[in-house]
Amino acid sequence: MKVNGRHYRSIWLNEDGWRVDIIDQTRLPHEFETVTLETLEDAARAIEIMQVRGAPLIGATAAYGVCLGLREDASDAALEAADARLRRTRPTAINLMWALDEMLATVRNLPREARLQAAYQRAAMLCDADVETNAAIGRNGLKLIEKIASGKSGETINILTHCNAGWLATVDWGTALAPIYMAHDKGLPVHVWADETRPRNQGAALTAWELGSHGVAHTIVVDNAGGHLMQRGLVDMVITGTDRTAGNGDVCNKIGTYLKALAASDNDVPFYVALPHSTIDWTVADGVRDIPIEQRGADEVTHLTGRAASGEIVKVHVSAPGSGAGNPAFDVTPARLVNGLITERGVCNASTDGLLSLYPERKA
Amino acid sequence: MKVNGRHYRSIWLNEDGWRVDIIDQTRLPHEFETVTLETLEDAARAIEIMQVRGAPLIGATAAYGVCLGLREDASDAALEAADARLRRTRPTAINLMWALDEMLATVRNLPREARLQAAYQRAAMLCDADVETNAAIGRNGLKLIEKIASGKSGETINILTHCNAGWLATVDWGTALAPIYMAHDKGLPVHVWADETRPRNQGAALTAWELGSHGVAHTIVVDNAGGHLMQRGLVDMVITGTDRTAGNGDVCNKIGTYLKALAASDNDVPFYVALPHSTIDWTVADGVRDIPIEQRGADEVTHLTGRAASGEIVKVHVSAPGSGAGNPAFDVTPARLVNGLITERGVCNASTDGLLSLYPERKA
Repeated sequence: MKVNGRHYRSIWLNEDGWRVDIIDQTRLPHEFETVTLETLEDAARAIEIMQVRGAPLIGATAAYGVCLGLREDASDAALEAADARLRRTRPTAINLMWALDEMLATVRNLPREARLQAAYQRAAMLCDADVETNAAIGRNGLKLIEKIASGKSGETINILTHCNAGWLATVDWGTALAPIYMAHDKGLPVHVWADETRPRNQGAALTAWELGSHGVAHTIVVDNAGGHLMQRGLVDMVITGTDRTAGNGDVCNKIGTYLKALAASDNDVPFYVALPHSTIDWTVADGVRDIPIEQRGADEVTHLTGRAASGEIVKVHVSAPGSGAGNPAFDVTPARLVNGLITERGVCNASTDGLLSLYPERKA
Repeated sequence: MKVNGRHYRSIWLNEDGWRVDIIDQTRLPHEFETVTLETLEDAARAIEIMQVRGAPLIGATAAYGVCLGLREDASDAALEAADARLRRTRPTAINLMWALDEMLATVRNLPREARLQAAYQRAAMLCDADVETNAAIGRNGLKLIEKIASGKSGETINILTHCNAGWLATVDWGTALAPIYMAHDKGLPVHVWADETRPRNQGAALTAWELGSHGVAHTIVVDNAGGHLMQRGLVDMVITGTDRTAGNGDVCNKIGTYLKALAASDNDVPFYVALPHSTIDWTVADGVRDIPIEQRGADEVTHLTGRAASGEIVKVHVSAPGSGAGNPAFDVTPARLVNGLITERGVCNASTDGLLSLYPERKA
């Protein structure tokens, strides 16, 4: 999507045809800086220190990391070492493992001299496939926005989102934000309520930055505000992403998503979740019961980083000094609160039957 | 309640018998400092710059402000000027107006030489009455906690609260926290989930500080976490305060309260609201429809103040620089989601009939 009027992906090949450029997401929203990765180690570090984040983008960066590693040394031993190094960067990221498996399968059985070109081709394909998946999610979600727009005779369509499921988390378009970008680009008057998304503020920092950079009207609100906005008729629909979708349609997403789904249900506001098929975990039959929730450090709750009036980026302690904090990072929204799942294949009910209608190849 | 093992109220008469001591709440939670008010202007400023906050405490400070004004000049003109000065400090605070009306009625018709003593007596009575009201709320709420404790055979009783309805907002005990302090003092194993309460963080800053200072076990969580905690059986009850209670039992409280009530209802967790009768607005028949919601400045959402590693208190910008923010300060929880109202007269259903059962004098 656009930044300062120019189109960007979150990762792209440098003009020299071999180095890899990324946006340094650790500087956002305060500064927009790009970083050029030249070595395997650069790519591994970029993932580790979260210059790139979001499952699809982590996978894409790892894929190019393999390419950069092969430039240094295309031997079997070096390939294995590169793979191992990249696998250690974010050990729980499923897309990372999947992308590395793909890269290994592509180059392993090739002669050394053919490996580099094949790797770059495969990495580019992975990126393009991610963009196409998200664009398809966008087209399918756009229909839902257009349907709402048709009942509003030109009035603003207000969409609430939680966390960041935008293009910064993918290679382009994003998942939850893809339909919104498409609606905006088509000239529909969309306005986004961007939930702040404590404790890491991805909504206030990344979603707001993305939308602002592309020119989409939006307003940041604290996570507490969504229920009130829906009660007063100020939200036409909710779209969020998901980190993991259970086989029964339960949706595991950033902590607080469940509260917004409850408020949407209480106020008859349609609640949609956008996802690529790669987030569906067919092995989990009951998401609320069975998806384990990551507990993160208290520091994320008790401290916040921002820009001081001096221009300096400062970390401050914002809560009572002696008090501890709990930090569950995700929650599970029961399928009964989800009006529909927006995937690259279409929109379905949040249920086993709904999912199988789009992915019949999964039927037993 | 206690701070460093010593009992404090939020406002008290200095040992000299005429000056007035308060806790400087603008320094909390980072520093505990008391301030001595010597003049009418000191009292007015303390209210204006929010060294004192919370409706009952604002009223008490204004009452003592009249006393300090009368020490300087007990004439009719000075009394009127003092009253006008104090009334301007927080123009929308109902308790402030009520306390000043009480003070005026007490001293206006007395000879000048009798005014000062009568004023101090009346101010002390206002404070004691607030303490007694909150203690009664505490005793009534304690019964609810004891009932839950009786089913848990010694296990921890987990209570979630939102914002700060503690002793810092009143003269002592608080409203929502009064039952919790009583349970703790009685030896019941209570543990409080303190919602951070964005944007002003009263939960993470004030509630956590209060509870920690008195020795009550507690954990700060972001406002997003409560639904997940309830879903996993980690909350036995919710108690919040209220800024305004409609005649039908709808409850207007800090933004985000409604979301917690929805989650409580979805998980069969009892949701109680503690209030003195002074917050009941009998003129509002439908709170969700008719209570206007204050919109506050975007700055409260986009900026946060905390202590940097250097020890300095710093304000930082935490969201995307170009993005605006909305800041509704309260929301209304429909009575259907409230399991009971805890007042100084007892616990009732959140309904017109429930309220009239405790306040039969309001029957038409």
